[in-house]
Amino acid sequence: MKNYLTKHMQQLHPYTAGLQPQEDGWIKLNTNENPYPPSPKVLDAINKIDTATLRLYPPGDGGKMREAIAKSLNLNEENIFCGNGSDEVLALAFQAFFSEKKPVHTPDISYGFYPVWGGMYNVGLNFIELNDDFTLDPTHYKNGQGVIIANPNAPTGLAIGLDAIESILKQNPDGVVLVDEAYIDFADIPSAVHLLPRYDNLLVVRTFSKSHALAGMRIGYAIGQPHLIDGLNLAKESFNSYPLDILAQTAAAAATEDADYLNHTCQKVIATRNRTVAVLEAMGYEVLPPQGNFLFMNVVPRDAKELYNYLLENKILVRYWDKPRISGMLRVSIGTDRDMEGFLKCVSQW
Amino acid sequence: MKNYLTKHMQQLHPYTAGLQPQEDGWIKLNTNENPYPPSPKVLDAINKIDTATLRLYPPGDGGKMREAIAKSLNLNEENIFCGNGSDEVLALAFQAFFSEKKPVHTPDISYGFYPVWGGMYNVGLNFIELNDDFTLDPTHYKNGQGVIIANPNAPTGLAIGLDAIESILKQNPDGVVLVDEAYIDFADIPSAVHLLPRYDNLLVVRTFSKSHALAGMRIGYAIGQPHLIDGLNLAKESFNSYPLDILAQTAAAAATEDADYLNHTCQKVIATRNRTVAVLEAMGYEVLPPQGNFLFMNVVPRDAKELYNYLLENKILVRYWDKPRISGMLRVSIGTDRDMEGFLKCVSQW
Repeated sequence: MKNYLTKHMQQLHPYTAGLQPQEDGWIKLNTNENPYPPSPKVLDAINKIDTATLRLYPPGDGGKMREAIAKSLNLNEENIFCGNGSDEVLALAFQAFFSEKKPVHTPDISYGFYPVWGGMYNVGLNFIELNDDFTLDPTHYKNGQGVIIANPNAPTGLAIGLDAIESILKQNPDGVVLVDEAYIDFADIPSAVHLLPRYDNLLVVRTFSKSHALAGMRIGYAIGQPHLIDGLNLAKESFNSYPLDILAQTAAAAATEDADYLNHTCQKVIATRNRTVAVLEAMGYEVLPPQGNFLFMNVVPRDAKELYNYLLENKILVRYWDKPRISGMLRVSIGTDRDMEGFLKCVSQW
Repeated sequence: MKNYLTKHMQQLHPYTAGLQPQEDGWIKLNTNENPYPPSPKVLDAINKIDTATLRLYPPGDGGKMREAIAKSLNLNEENIFCGNGSDEVLALAFQAFFSEKKPVHTPDISYGFYPVWGGMYNVGLNFIELNDDFTLDPTHYKNGQGVIIANPNAPTGLAIGLDAIESILKQNPDGVVLVDEAYIDFADIPSAVHLLPRYDNLLVVRTFSKSHALAGMRIGYAIGQPHLIDGLNLAKESFNSYPLDILAQTAAAAATEDADYLNHTCQKVIATRNRTVAVLEAMGYEVLPPQGNFLFMNVVPRDAKELYNYLLENKILVRYWDKPRISGMLRVSIGTDRDMEGFLKCVSQW
């Protein structure tokens, strides 16, 4: 069989998403989904859609979703770019702002899609080692063509403060600094959005998949000054004019407007998370101080892969990476209290 | 203000989509949308979705949509790739199969996004002139790195037969031949899918935006032998693991299963189209024999731009391109009978 793939494609290492079992009976703590459903107002809004609307192309800019997000952040619509999940938004940002010419700084341990996009779009990444305790030292991030960091970081769950973000912005004046805030609603640090008025090289990227419990709807967005939003639009208009369908836009607008529900469910997840950490620590496990809707636990001196497999046998899915520095760790998404009781019971029996 | 765009991005000419007025009162015949709503079974299926499902990532491969399409075509799921509109599917195909090294053949007059993707992904396109009557001569398509054609073509509305497609497949054995069948359900020619078993370089791309009346849901797919589907998956997994949200997948499956409704509404559109052509011809206009849900009329010796503007003043949107060879033409999407009466009345008054 002839291979029709380009040489470039043949060399790529695509992203491996967490397992998605389709049958029931699993405690699924492997992809940082929200254990609670989205706001009931989301379903109300979807059910109110006039079927005739579906025959027309949707607004290419996100329409009411963009309006609702801008309003919720006290910004203008021209500060918001809407995309088909934050993965698409980040991929378009790579294409718009990063070329082969100079490296882009990123931590050695972070979201696994960053190096995949680096490969796909021929962007050299400069992997900067996190400290031994997995904290990030901002003084190492200087004079890049750009920077991409997740804050809070994944899978570590650790976060850096506004002062650290600000020093990275100042130290990379010629490049766009992408701050991926997928988990910001579970953190006790302020959003980098506060720095937006003063830095024209800051792009904050967020998702509806975690705190808004809409992973099934594939909704993400970026926040930045208008020239960066224009750059994302240029990339979008050179790829797919209408990245978000009308139901996704409708769901996002409704979820954004229900701030009370967002806050309530995030607080529930945070409370469950903190109780789970306390129990694991009482069992003798070291757990990094979590700022997301997941925790990163150290299984050493025992074998993390063995614990992963033991949990798997008991139909509990968590995430394990056979990679330097983190092969002794497991990442565990925060489920309901009942999910976490099942998880903790299984760990205690191991 | 500093320009953070890459040099490559600064040179791009993005796609210009047709106008999408948000207020009522327009006769919208400019983006080849279906004038009829999607199958009522689509809304039923969407309304039956359990809200709790929305919190989980959707199947990355299209799930039940992929199953339904494979079944409807009497093919296997491994022959089907599902994407966020056929625009995304085509863009991923460019990235997977076309590089800078050799030109890709395409007609000089065809879908305006092809040259945009060529620019975005550094793929040199070899624009092959259509004949003076806008028909395509397959003997001109030889030894390309690949081929991309729309069949029926847009904006001409003309189609080529299976024998012509087959000769293009044979004449380009080293490259993937993309056949964009966005409008196939309105045509009286057979689909290139019939050639699939015999050609490992054929990729047929389709959309739910036209015949299925789901432009608002952004759903497209490709049909090919498994090695080409694998190539698209590799591109997808290097970009965005979950391109289609769960409601889009649900809508696509329901629409696919309602073949009677599809056939019924297509026949209505075709009947309206043929009546409209007859009236225009009676007025003295030349109209290319249409095979899509639109027609391409020759306004020469009068001025097509003037007719476009006259229609616009009367709140009727059609499509005009100020481009060589077609600047005397207008493309008119087929609406309801009432839409077309309004259009024809306005043309007759011009």
